[in-house]
Amino acid sequence: MPYTYEYPRPAVTVDCILFGFDDGELKVLLIQRASDPFKGLWAFPGGFLDMEDPTIEFAAKRELEEETGLKEVFMEQLYTFGDVGRDPRGRTVSVAYYALVKLSDYLLQAGSDADQAHWFNISQVPALAFDHAKILQMALERLKGKVRYQPIGFELLPQKFTLSELQHLYETVLEKPLDKRNFRKKILKMNLLKPLEEMQAGVAHRAARLYQFDKQRYEELKSRGFNFEI
Amino acid sequence: MPYTYEYPRPAVTVDCILFGFDDGELKVLLIQRASDPFKGLWAFPGGFLDMEDPTIEFAAKRELEEETGLKEVFMEQLYTFGDVGRDPRGRTVSVAYYALVKLSDYLLQAGSDADQAHWFNISQVPALAFDHAKILQMALERLKGKVRYQPIGFELLPQKFTLSELQHLYETVLEKPLDKRNFRKKILKMNLLKPLEEMQAGVAHRAARLYQFDKQRYEELKSRGFNFEI
Repeated sequence: MPYTYEYPRPAVTVDCILFGFDDGELKVLLIQRASDPFKGLWAFPGGFLDMEDPTIEFAAKRELEEETGLKEVFMEQLYTFGDVGRDPRGRTVSVAYYALVKLSDYLLQAGSDADQAHWFNISQVPALAFDHAKILQMALERLKGKVRYQPIGFELLPQKFTLSELQHLYETVLEKPLDKRNFRKKILKMNLLKPLEEMQAGVAHRAARLYQFDKQRYEELKSRGFNFEI
Repeated sequence: MPYTYEYPRPAVTVDCILFGFDDGELKVLLIQRASDPFKGLWAFPGGFLDMEDPTIEFAAKRELEEETGLKEVFMEQLYTFGDVGRDPRGRTVSVAYYALVKLSDYLLQAGSDADQAHWFNISQVPALAFDHAKILQMALERLKGKVRYQPIGFELLPQKFTLSELQHLYETVLEKPLDKRNFRKKILKMNLLKPLEEMQAGVAHRAARLYQFDKQRYEELKSRGFNFEI
Protein backbone atom coordinates (compact mmCIF):
# COMPACT_ATOMS: atom_id res chain seq x y z
CA MET A 1 0.00 0.00 0.00
CA PRO A 2 1.56 3.28 -1.02
CA TYR A 3 1.67 6.34 1.22
CA THR A 4 0.68 9.72 -0.17
CA TYR A 5 1.63 13.21 1.01
CA GLU A 6 0.80 16.70 -0.22
CA TYR A 7 4.46 17.72 -0.27
CA PRO A 8 7.52 15.59 -1.04
CA ARG A 9 9.29 14.12 2.00
CA PRO A 10 12.89 13.02 2.45
CA ALA A 11 13.63 9.52 3.67
CA VAL A 12 14.83 9.41 7.27
CA THR A 13 17.51 6.90 8.25
CA VAL A 14 19.78 6.19 11.20
CA ASP A 15 23.48 5.32 11.05
CA CYS A 16 25.50 3.87 13.87
CA ILE A 17 29.24 4.42 14.21
CA LEU A 18 30.36 1.66 16.56
CA PHE A 19 33.84 1.98 18.07
CA GLY A 20 35.82 -0.70 19.84
CA PHE A 21 39.36 -0.92 21.23
CA ASP A 22 41.51 -4.03 20.97
CA ASP A 23 45.17 -4.87 20.87
CA GLY A 24 46.06 -1.20 21.31
CA GLU A 25 44.02 -0.06 18.31
CA LEU A 26 40.82 1.94 17.97
CA LYS A 27 38.46 0.08 15.67
CA VAL A 28 35.19 0.77 13.86
CA LEU A 29 32.60 -1.74 12.66
CA LEU A 30 31.71 -1.57 8.96
CA ILE A 31 29.44 -3.59 6.75
CA GLN A 32 30.14 -4.27 3.11
CA ARG A 33 27.27 -3.21 0.88
CA ALA A 34 25.77 -6.12 -1.02
CA SER A 35 23.84 -3.98 -3.50
CA ASP A 36 23.83 -0.63 -5.25
CA PRO A 37 24.33 2.20 -4.69
CA PHE A 38 27.98 1.86 -3.67
CA LYS A 39 27.91 -1.96 -4.00
CA GLY A 40 31.09 -3.45 -2.54
CA LEU A 41 31.98 -0.34 -0.56
CA TRP A 42 31.77 -0.26 3.24
CA ALA A 43 29.21 1.56 5.38
CA PHE A 44 27.98 1.91 8.96
CA PRO A 45 25.18 -0.31 10.25
CA GLY A 46 21.92 1.55 9.82
CA GLY A 47 18.48 1.64 8.25
CA PHE A 48 15.19 3.45 8.02
CA LEU A 49 13.34 5.06 10.92
CA ASP A 50 10.10 3.14 11.37
CA MET A 51 7.00 5.18 12.15
CA GLU A 52 6.50 2.93 15.20
CA ASP A 53 9.96 3.48 16.72
CA PRO A 54 9.22 5.44 19.92
CA THR A 55 12.47 7.44 19.56
CA ILE A 56 15.17 7.87 16.93
CA GLU A 57 17.71 6.34 19.32
CA PHE A 58 15.48 3.28 19.56
CA ALA A 59 15.77 2.91 15.79
CA ALA A 60 19.56 3.22 15.95
CA LYS A 61 19.75 0.56 18.68
CA ARG A 62 17.37 -1.72 16.76
CA GLU A 63 19.45 -1.50 13.60
CA LEU A 64 22.65 -2.09 15.51
CA GLU A 65 21.21 -5.16 17.18
CA GLU A 66 19.83 -6.51 13.90
CA GLU A 67 23.18 -6.18 12.17
CA THR A 68 25.55 -7.08 15.00
CA GLY A 69 23.54 -8.78 17.76
CA LEU A 70 24.72 -6.12 20.23
CA LYS A 71 22.20 -4.87 22.77
CA GLU A 72 23.59 -2.91 25.68
CA VAL A 73 25.96 -0.27 24.35
CA PHE A 74 26.84 3.28 25.28
CA MET A 75 25.21 5.39 22.55
CA GLU A 76 24.82 9.12 21.91
CA GLN A 77 23.48 11.15 19.04
CA LEU A 78 26.30 12.52 16.92
CA TYR A 79 24.87 14.78 14.22
CA THR A 80 22.27 14.79 11.47
CA PHE A 81 23.44 14.66 7.87
CA GLY A 82 21.09 15.78 5.11
CA ASP A 83 22.95 17.48 2.27
CA VAL A 84 21.20 17.18 -1.06
CA GLY A 85 22.84 14.45 -3.15
CA ARG A 86 24.32 12.44 -0.26
CA ASP A 87 22.21 9.46 -1.38
CA PRO A 88 21.80 8.97 -5.16
CA ARG A 89 18.40 7.33 -4.59
CA GLY A 90 16.84 10.54 -3.34
CA ARG A 91 16.92 13.08 -0.53
CA THR A 92 17.82 11.25 2.65
CA VAL A 93 18.28 12.69 6.12
CA SER A 94 20.38 10.47 8.36
CA VAL A 95 20.54 10.86 12.12
CA ALA A 96 23.92 9.46 13.13
CA TYR A 97 24.73 7.94 16.54
CA TYR A 98 28.09 6.85 17.85
CA ALA A 99 28.39 3.89 20.15
CA LEU A 100 31.14 2.36 22.27
CA VAL A 101 31.56 -1.30 23.08
CA LYS A 102 33.99 -3.48 25.04
CA LEU A 103 35.47 -5.75 22.40
CA SER A 104 35.63 -9.42 23.28
CA ASP A 105 36.97 -12.30 21.25
CA TYR A 106 33.37 -13.28 20.60
CA LEU A 107 32.51 -9.88 19.13
CA LEU A 108 35.66 -9.75 17.04
CA GLN A 109 34.80 -13.19 15.72
CA ALA A 110 31.19 -12.24 14.96
CA GLY A 111 32.39 -9.29 12.93
CA SER A 112 34.80 -11.29 10.83
CA ASP A 113 33.11 -12.94 7.85
CA ALA A 114 29.40 -13.63 8.33
CA ASP A 115 27.14 -11.01 6.77
CA GLN A 116 30.06 -8.87 5.65
CA ALA A 117 30.58 -7.12 8.99
CA HIS A 118 34.19 -6.38 9.86
CA TRP A 119 36.16 -4.44 12.47
CA PHE A 120 38.70 -2.10 10.89
CA ASN A 121 41.56 -0.27 12.55
CA ILE A 122 40.90 3.46 12.25
CA SER A 123 44.12 3.85 10.32
CA GLN A 124 43.06 1.21 7.80
CA VAL A 125 39.48 2.09 6.96
CA PRO A 126 38.57 1.15 3.36
CA ALA A 127 36.59 3.29 0.89
CA LEU A 128 33.24 4.21 2.42
CA ALA A 129 29.81 4.59 0.81
CA PHE A 130 27.70 7.79 0.80
CA ASP A 131 29.15 10.59 2.98
CA HIS A 132 30.28 8.07 5.59
CA ALA A 133 33.93 9.22 5.46
CA LYS A 134 32.72 12.66 6.59
CA ILE A 135 30.53 11.06 9.28
CA LEU A 136 33.46 8.97 10.55
CA GLN A 137 35.64 12.09 10.72
CA MET A 138 33.04 13.87 12.83
CA ALA A 139 32.59 10.84 15.10
CA LEU A 140 36.34 10.70 15.75
CA GLU A 141 36.40 14.42 16.55
CA ARG A 142 33.50 13.98 18.97
CA LEU A 143 35.21 11.05 20.66
CA LYS A 144 38.36 13.13 21.03
CA GLY A 145 36.41 16.03 22.50
CA LYS A 146 34.42 13.76 24.84
CA VAL A 147 37.23 11.75 26.42
CA ARG A 148 38.85 14.97 27.54
CA TYR A 149 36.03 15.91 29.90
CA GLN A 150 33.87 12.77 30.39
CA PRO A 151 35.30 9.38 31.31
CA ILE A 152 33.72 7.50 28.40
CA GLY A 153 36.97 5.70 27.61
CA PHE A 154 36.00 3.05 30.16
CA GLU A 155 33.20 1.93 27.84
CA LEU A 156 35.91 0.75 25.44
CA LEU A 157 38.17 -1.05 27.93
CA PRO A 158 37.72 -4.52 29.43
CA GLN A 159 36.26 -4.66 32.96
CA LYS A 160 39.77 -4.91 34.41
CA PHE A 161 42.69 -2.97 32.99
CA THR A 162 46.11 -1.63 33.89
CA LEU A 163 46.91 2.08 34.07
CA SER A 164 49.16 1.64 31.04
CA GLU A 165 46.27 0.24 29.04
CA LEU A 166 44.11 3.16 30.10
CA GLN A 167 46.77 5.67 29.13
CA HIS A 168 47.27 3.98 25.78
CA LEU A 169 43.54 4.24 25.08
CA TYR A 170 43.61 7.97 25.78
CA GLU A 171 46.70 8.42 23.63
CA THR A 172 45.10 6.52 20.79
CA VAL A 173 41.85 8.51 20.85
CA LEU A 174 43.62 11.85 21.34
CA GLU A 175 46.29 10.96 18.79
CA LYS A 176 49.09 12.25 20.94
CA PRO A 177 51.44 10.96 23.64
CA LEU A 178 50.64 11.86 27.25
CA ASP A 179 53.06 12.33 30.08
CA LYS A 180 52.85 9.16 32.20
CA ARG A 181 53.25 10.78 35.61
CA ASN A 182 50.89 13.62 34.88
CA PHE A 183 48.27 11.28 33.41
CA ARG A 184 48.35 8.93 36.40
CA LYS A 185 48.15 11.82 38.83
CA LYS A 186 45.07 13.32 37.12
CA ILE A 187 43.30 9.99 36.65
CA LEU A 188 43.89 8.76 40.20
CA LYS A 189 42.87 12.12 41.64
CA MET A 190 39.40 11.67 40.10
CA ASN A 191 38.84 8.67 42.38
CA LEU A 192 37.09 6.80 39.59
CA LEU A 193 39.32 3.75 39.70
CA LYS A 194 39.07 0.86 42.11
CA PRO A 195 42.46 -0.85 42.54
CA LEU A 196 42.04 -4.63 42.57
CA GLU A 197 44.06 -7.23 44.44
CA GLU A 198 44.59 -8.89 41.10
CA MET A 199 47.62 -8.37 38.90
CA GLN A 200 47.98 -8.46 35.13
CA ALA A 201 48.16 -12.04 33.80
CA GLY A 202 50.72 -13.51 31.45
CA VAL A 203 53.51 -11.25 32.57
CA ALA A 204 56.35 -12.93 34.41
CA HIS A 205 58.10 -9.94 35.98
CA ARG A 206 56.72 -6.64 37.24
CA ALA A 207 53.08 -7.50 36.45
CA ALA A 208 50.99 -4.33 36.78
CA ARG A 209 48.03 -3.89 39.06
CA LEU A 210 44.55 -4.18 37.58
CA TYR A 211 41.89 -1.51 38.10
CA GLN A 212 38.16 -1.31 37.67
CA PHE A 213 36.02 1.70 36.73
CA ASP A 214 33.83 2.80 39.65
CA LYS A 215 30.58 3.65 37.87
CA GLN A 216 28.64 4.38 41.04
CA ARG A 217 31.26 6.86 42.17
CA TYR A 218 31.20 8.41 38.69
CA GLU A 219 27.43 8.97 38.79
CA GLU A 220 27.78 10.51 42.24
CA LEU A 221 30.55 12.89 41.17
CA LYS A 222 28.72 13.77 37.95
CA SER A 223 25.59 14.76 39.84
CA ARG A 224 27.78 17.14 41.89
CA GLY A 225 29.10 18.82 38.73
CA PHE A 226 32.61 17.41 39.09
CA ASN A 227 35.12 18.37 36.38
CA PHE A 228 36.57 15.23 34.80
CA GLU A 229 38.96 16.99 32.48
CA ILE A 230 42.14 15.13 31.52
CA MET B 1 0.17 17.00 -6.98
CA PRO B 2 0.51 14.36 -4.27
CA TYR B 3 3.74 12.49 -3.59
CA THR B 4 3.65 8.74 -3.15
CA TYR B 5 6.10 6.44 -1.37
CA GLU B 6 6.21 2.71 -0.80
CA TYR B 7 6.74 3.17 2.97
CA PRO B 8 5.42 5.91 5.26
CA ARG B 9 7.78 8.82 5.83
CA PRO B 10 8.00 11.25 8.73
CA ALA B 11 7.87 14.97 8.03
CA VAL B 12 11.25 16.69 8.46
CA THR B 13 11.37 20.18 9.94
CA VAL B 14 13.99 22.59 11.27
CA ASP B 15 13.73 24.67 14.43
CA CYS B 16 15.92 27.59 15.33
CA ILE B 17 16.65 28.62 18.91
CA LEU B 18 17.87 32.21 18.61
CA PHE B 19 19.59 33.70 21.66
CA GLY B 20 20.33 37.35 22.30
CA PHE B 21 21.73 39.28 25.27
CA ASP B 22 20.47 42.69 26.30
CA ASP B 23 20.25 44.72 29.46
CA GLY B 24 22.06 42.02 31.40
CA GLU B 25 19.60 39.31 30.41
CA LEU B 26 19.86 36.27 28.16
CA LYS B 27 16.90 36.28 25.78
CA VAL B 28 15.30 33.90 23.30
CA LEU B 29 13.11 34.73 20.30
CA LEU B 30 9.71 33.04 20.24
CA ILE B 31 6.77 33.22 17.88
CA GLN B 32 3.18 32.90 19.00
CA ARG B 33 1.36 30.20 17.08
CA ALA B 34 -1.58 31.55 15.09
CA SER B 35 -3.18 28.17 14.45
CA ASP B 36 -3.58 24.69 15.85
CA PRO B 37 -1.97 22.59 17.14
CA PHE B 38 -0.95 24.58 20.21
CA LYS B 39 -2.67 27.76 18.98
CA GLY B 40 -1.71 30.69 21.17
CA LEU B 41 1.36 28.97 22.64
CA TRP B 42 4.88 30.05 21.77
CA ALA B 43 7.39 28.25 19.59
CA PHE B 44 10.77 28.62 17.91
CA PRO B 45 10.98 29.95 14.35
CA GLY B 46 11.07 27.00 11.99
CA GLY B 47 9.46 25.13 9.16
CA PHE B 48 9.76 22.26 6.72
CA LEU B 49 12.92 21.12 5.00
CA ASP B 50 12.45 21.74 1.28
CA MET B 51 13.75 19.07 -1.07
CA GLU B 52 15.71 21.81 -2.86
CA ASP B 53 17.52 23.13 0.25
CA PRO B 54 21.17 22.20 -0.39
CA THR B 55 21.77 21.53 3.32
CA ILE B 56 19.64 21.29 6.45
CA GLU B 57 21.43 24.35 7.88
CA PHE B 58 20.41 26.26 4.77
CA ALA B 59 16.77 25.48 5.62
CA ALA B 60 17.25 26.66 9.21
CA LYS B 61 18.81 29.94 8.01
CA ARG B 62 16.06 30.41 5.42
CA GLU B 63 13.32 29.94 8.01
CA LEU B 64 15.05 32.28 10.44
CA GLU B 65 15.39 34.97 7.78
CA GLU B 66 11.76 34.56 6.68
CA GLU B 67 10.49 34.95 10.22
CA THR B 68 12.92 37.55 11.61
CA GLY B 69 14.73 39.18 8.66
CA LEU B 70 18.06 38.10 10.18
CA LYS B 71 20.73 36.89 7.77
CA GLU B 72 24.23 36.64 9.17
CA VAL B 73 24.11 34.81 12.45
CA PHE B 74 26.33 32.32 14.25
CA MET B 75 24.52 28.99 13.93
CA GLU B 76 25.27 25.40 14.90
CA GLN B 77 23.30 22.20 14.84
CA LEU B 78 22.00 21.35 18.32
CA TYR B 79 20.25 17.98 18.21
CA THR B 80 17.55 16.12 16.32
CA PHE B 81 14.23 15.49 18.05
CA GLY B 82 11.94 12.77 16.74
CA ASP B 83 10.05 11.06 19.53
CA VAL B 84 6.76 9.59 18.46
CA GLY B 85 3.90 11.91 19.47
CA ARG B 86 5.91 15.15 19.63
CA ASP B 87 3.66 16.58 16.92
CA PRO B 88 -0.04 15.63 17.10
CA ARG B 89 -0.34 15.98 13.32
CA GLY B 90 1.94 13.00 12.68
CA ARG B 91 5.46 11.73 13.05
CA THR B 92 7.82 14.70 12.68
CA VAL B 93 11.59 14.73 12.94
CA SER B 94 12.95 18.17 13.75
CA VAL B 95 16.59 19.10 13.32
CA ALA B 96 17.20 21.92 15.82
CA TYR B 97 19.85 24.63 15.43
CA TYR B 98 20.85 27.25 17.95
CA ALA B 99 21.90 30.70 16.84
CA LEU B 100 23.45 33.74 18.52
CA VAL B 101 22.87 37.36 17.56
CA LYS B 102 24.02 40.78 18.75
CA LEU B 103 20.83 42.45 19.89
CA SER B 104 20.29 46.00 18.65
CA ASP B 105 17.40 48.36 19.37
CA TYR B 106 16.26 47.66 15.83
CA LEU B 107 16.10 43.92 16.42
CA LEU B 108 14.40 44.28 19.78
CA GLN B 109 11.81 46.51 18.12
CA ALA B 110 11.27 44.09 15.23
CA GLY B 111 10.54 41.33 17.69
CA SER B 112 7.97 43.27 19.67
CA ASP B 113 4.55 43.24 18.05
CA ALA B 114 4.58 42.54 14.30
CA ASP B 115 3.92 38.92 13.35
CA GLN B 116 3.81 37.75 16.97
CA ALA B 117 7.58 37.48 17.38
CA HIS B 118 8.87 38.43 20.81
CA TRP B 119 12.13 38.32 22.77
CA PHE B 120 11.69 36.71 26.18
CA ASN B 121 14.06 36.72 29.11
CA ILE B 122 15.15 33.13 29.75
CA SER B 123 13.67 33.37 33.25
CA GLN B 124 10.29 34.45 31.86
CA VAL B 125 9.64 32.07 29.01
CA PRO B 126 5.90 31.38 28.52
CA ALA B 127 4.28 27.98 27.84
CA LEU B 128 5.87 26.44 24.76
CA ALA B 129 4.31 24.34 22.00
CA PHE B 130 5.37 20.78 21.07
CA ASP B 131 8.51 19.57 22.91
CA HIS B 132 10.06 23.04 22.67
CA ALA B 133 10.58 23.33 26.44
CA LYS B 134 12.84 20.25 26.23
CA ILE B 135 14.62 21.70 23.18
CA LEU B 136 15.20 25.02 24.98
CA GLN B 137 16.64 23.16 27.96
CA MET B 138 19.08 21.35 25.74
CA ALA B 139 20.03 24.57 23.92
CA LEU B 140 20.80 26.27 27.24
CA GLU B 141 22.93 23.31 28.34
CA ARG B 142 24.84 23.42 25.05
CA LEU B 143 25.41 27.15 25.38
CA LYS B 144 26.71 26.62 28.91
CA GLY B 145 29.05 23.87 27.76
CA LYS B 146 30.25 25.85 24.77
CA VAL B 147 31.14 29.17 26.42
CA ARG B 148 33.45 27.32 28.77
CA TYR B 149 35.83 26.22 26.04
CA GLN B 150 35.01 28.30 22.94
CA PRO B 151 34.67 32.10 22.97
CA ILE B 152 31.20 32.20 21.41
CA GLY B 153 29.97 34.70 23.99
CA PHE B 154 31.29 37.48 21.78
CA GLU B 155 28.59 36.69 19.25
CA LEU B 156 26.08 37.94 21.83
CA LEU B 157 27.85 41.14 22.89
CA PRO B 158 27.91 44.47 21.05
CA GLN B 159 31.06 45.20 18.99
CA LYS B 160 32.49 47.20 21.90
CA PHE B 161 32.08 46.12 25.51
CA THR B 162 33.58 46.50 28.95
CA LEU B 163 35.17 43.64 30.87
CA SER B 164 32.31 43.86 33.37
CA GLU B 165 29.78 43.36 30.59
CA LEU B 166 31.74 40.36 29.35
CA GLN B 167 31.91 38.85 32.83
CA HIS B 168 28.20 39.42 33.35
CA LEU B 169 27.44 37.59 30.10
CA TYR B 170 29.49 34.59 31.25
CA GLU B 171 27.83 34.65 34.66
CA THR B 172 24.38 34.77 33.07
CA VAL B 173 25.04 31.89 30.70
CA LEU B 174 26.83 29.77 33.32
CA GLU B 175 24.25 30.70 36.00
CA LYS B 176 26.91 31.31 38.62
CA PRO B 177 29.05 34.18 39.87
CA LEU B 178 32.68 34.27 38.76
CA ASP B 179 35.62 35.70 40.65
CA LYS B 180 36.41 39.06 39.01
CA ARG B 181 40.19 38.93 39.30
CA ASN B 182 40.43 35.34 38.16
CA PHE B 183 38.04 35.92 35.23
CA ARG B 184 39.97 38.97 33.98
CA LYS B 185 43.27 37.16 34.29
CA LYS B 186 42.05 34.18 32.27
CA ILE B 187 40.29 36.25 29.61
CA LEU B 188 43.16 38.71 29.10
CA LYS B 189 45.68 35.86 28.98
CA MET B 190 43.89 34.48 25.90
CA ASN B 191 44.87 37.61 23.98
CA LEU B 192 41.50 37.69 22.25
CA LEU B 193 40.60 41.22 23.32
CA LYS B 194 41.77 44.42 21.69
CA PRO B 195 41.71 47.30 24.22
CA LEU B 196 40.31 50.44 22.57
CA GLU B 197 41.22 54.08 23.27
CA GLU B 198 37.51 54.61 23.82
CA MET B 199 35.85 54.56 27.24
CA GLN B 200 32.32 53.55 28.25
CA ALA B 201 29.79 56.31 27.46
CA GLY B 202 27.17 57.77 29.79
CA VAL B 203 29.22 57.18 32.93
CA ALA B 204 30.47 60.33 34.66
CA HIS B 205 33.09 58.87 36.98
CA ARG B 206 35.40 55.91 36.54
CA ALA B 207 34.19 55.05 33.02
CA ALA B 208 35.54 51.62 32.07
CA ARG B 209 37.66 50.87 29.02
CA LEU B 210 35.97 49.34 25.99
CA TYR B 211 37.30 46.22 24.30
CA GLN B 212 36.76 44.53 20.97
CA PHE B 213 36.91 40.82 20.14
CA ASP B 214 39.89 40.00 17.91
CA LYS B 215 38.37 37.48 15.51
CA GLN B 216 41.49 37.15 13.36
CA ARG B 217 43.59 36.34 16.39
CA TYR B 218 40.94 33.82 17.49
CA GLU B 219 41.03 31.98 14.15
CA GLU B 220 44.82 31.91 14.34
CA LEU B 221 44.86 30.50 17.89
CA LYS B 222 42.10 28.02 17.07
CA SER B 223 44.07 26.62 14.13
CA ARG B 224 46.97 26.04 16.55
CA GLY B 225 44.73 24.02 18.90
CA PHE B 226 44.73 26.68 21.65
CA ASN B 227 42.71 25.88 24.79
CA PHE B 228 40.12 28.63 25.39
CA GLU B 229 38.77 27.21 28.62
CA ILE B 230 37.33 29.68 31.12
